[in-house]
Amino acid sequence: MKIGLIGLGKMGLNLGKNLIDHKHEVAAFDLNDAAVTEMKEYGADGFSSLQDMVQSLSAPRVLWIMVPHGVVDTVLGQIKPLLSQGDIVIEAGNSHYKESIRRADELKEAGIYYMDAGTSGGMEGARNGACYMIGGDPEAWSVVEPVFRDTSVDNGYLYAGPSGSGHYLKMVHNGIEYGMMAAIGEGFEVLEKSSFDFDYEKVAKVWNNGSVIRSWLMELTENAFSKDSKLDGIKGVMHSSGEGKWTVEEAMDLQTATPVIAMSLLMRYRSMDNDTFTGKVVAALRNEFGGHAVEKK
Amino acid sequence: MKIGLIGLGKMGLNLGKNLIDHKHEVAAFDLNDAAVTEMKEYGADGFSSLQDMVQSLSAPRVLWIMVPHGVVDTVLGQIKPLLSQGDIVIEAGNSHYKESIRRADELKEAGIYYMDAGTSGGMEGARNGACYMIGGDPEAWSVVEPVFRDTSVDNGYLYAGPSGSGHYLKMVHNGIEYGMMAAIGEGFEVLEKSSFDFDYEKVAKVWNNGSVIRSWLMELTENAFSKDSKLDGIKGVMHSSGEGKWTVEEAMDLQTATPVIAMSLLMRYRSMDNDTFTGKVVAALRNEFGGHAVEKK
Repeated sequence: MKIGLIGLGKMGLNLGKNLIDHKHEVAAFDLNDAAVTEMKEYGADGFSSLQDMVQSLSAPRVLWIMVPHGVVDTVLGQIKPLLSQGDIVIEAGNSHYKESIRRADELKEAGIYYMDAGTSGGMEGARNGACYMIGGDPEAWSVVEPVFRDTSVDNGYLYAGPSGSGHYLKMVHNGIEYGMMAAIGEGFEVLEKSSFDFDYEKVAKVWNNGSVIRSWLMELTENAFSKDSKLDGIKGVMHSSGEGKWTVEEAMDLQTATPVIAMSLLMRYRSMDNDTFTGKVVAALRNEFGGHAVEKK
Repeated sequence: MKIGLIGLGKMGLNLGKNLIDHKHEVAAFDLNDAAVTEMKEYGADGFSSLQDMVQSLSAPRVLWIMVPHGVVDTVLGQIKPLLSQGDIVIEAGNSHYKESIRRADELKEAGIYYMDAGTSGGMEGARNGACYMIGGDPEAWSVVEPVFRDTSVDNGYLYAGPSGSGHYLKMVHNGIEYGMMAAIGEGFEVLEKSSFDFDYEKVAKVWNNGSVIRSWLMELTENAFSKDSKLDGIKGVMHSSGEGKWTVEEAMDLQTATPVIAMSLLMRYRSMDNDTFTGKVVAALRNEFGGHAVEKK
């Protein structure tokens, strides 16, 4: 199948190579000339004009958008006038599922199919086999399924249902990921504060072999400790890119108790601060009612 | 090596067979005649008297205790008079690490080595390859290491350090397990409350193939949904057997913030109640100050 690939960042470049490895044709666009050149050298047609790229495809077109979620609407606005009825647009970034539903509805008016694909597995997955959760019209799905089958690991794709369901699953996947990562982090925090002197790489390694908590995340933990045995080189600041927050917002809209995922999100925010106003207020109150010492700046 | 195996419950019986598969000799004791018979049929010497079993071994003896943690002190009291200097006692159940340190100290006075071994992987692990975290005297470790190597999966054992360190790692392992399981549960709770109609077995399956949250626990999730697609047959009551609580108690003693693991424990307790007094108090207060409706019994 011929795929118009929009976005040659770390994920898009790796996916493009993965597509070519699986005998698909790729017409690739990016504003970054170096990425376009790298893609061309791997066998793709390369374009620095989005219009030229889209017009190089014959209808029905299949376009794969792999750009930061803040740019998706801009890209859609640019390509929509160039598309025709029956074309299929796949958006495989980390968009909010409600935006994916809105975009699918808007494109449907022009007879264009829109598939939302949540993608997991990182750069390595994009290159050698990703994990996809895909929502959208079943007719369009039957056309593009081979592309997902070819670029995923075995059993690594799921047609999840109507528009939005793919990004919904990816959102919840990330919420679970937040909780699992926090549990792993807290466990090692206890080990670090304990009176024992554990070798964390070896601990993670034994937990990856036969234990109940063996997991890819524990393998990554083992990798991290193998490079820096006490993680002395990094700070415990936990950034977040939105999907954990979306999961908690969704849980609140559904009035659903997800305290562990919510707490893992809130502790990421706590980690962004060196000090907290909460702490000042509580320390001040203890001082007011009980004369307990406060730590002065 | 010849091992005196005390306790032929689900874990002990499987371990005994695992030992025999690996050419170790087993002298097995249990009060349950059927278990002793099953062990004898598999090639062990079987005893219904603890004294006879211990006396069948020649010094230095290696004894492996695989009994519920409430019974460990009773067993130790019974065997201590029968042991002599240089004997090694391995306790591979789920004891609190502080109890393991105390027991090791008590046996050390008689020149007896005591190893605490945290065991993960369940019955299947005990039978075909477990995951062990072991603490105790390094001299004794050098004697018994082959037994752990033979009955674990590849790289599935770690000599963690002094007495207590094995059960300490197992305790924290279980704390992490609580948090990971809660995160998985909450994620599927969001899916269940959502407006989409997901096939949970398929969701767990795709998450096990290439995603960031692929894990043995997610494989067990897939298995569970494969047997009962909505888990209609069971109630959401989450029992606990102590190690999550010990992790949180330890974290509090260390003044260490582990809110995700703590919350996963507290939500297990919440699940034991059909209704809560907390809820009654909050509902009553909302009624008192704002006239908000309460639900009457």
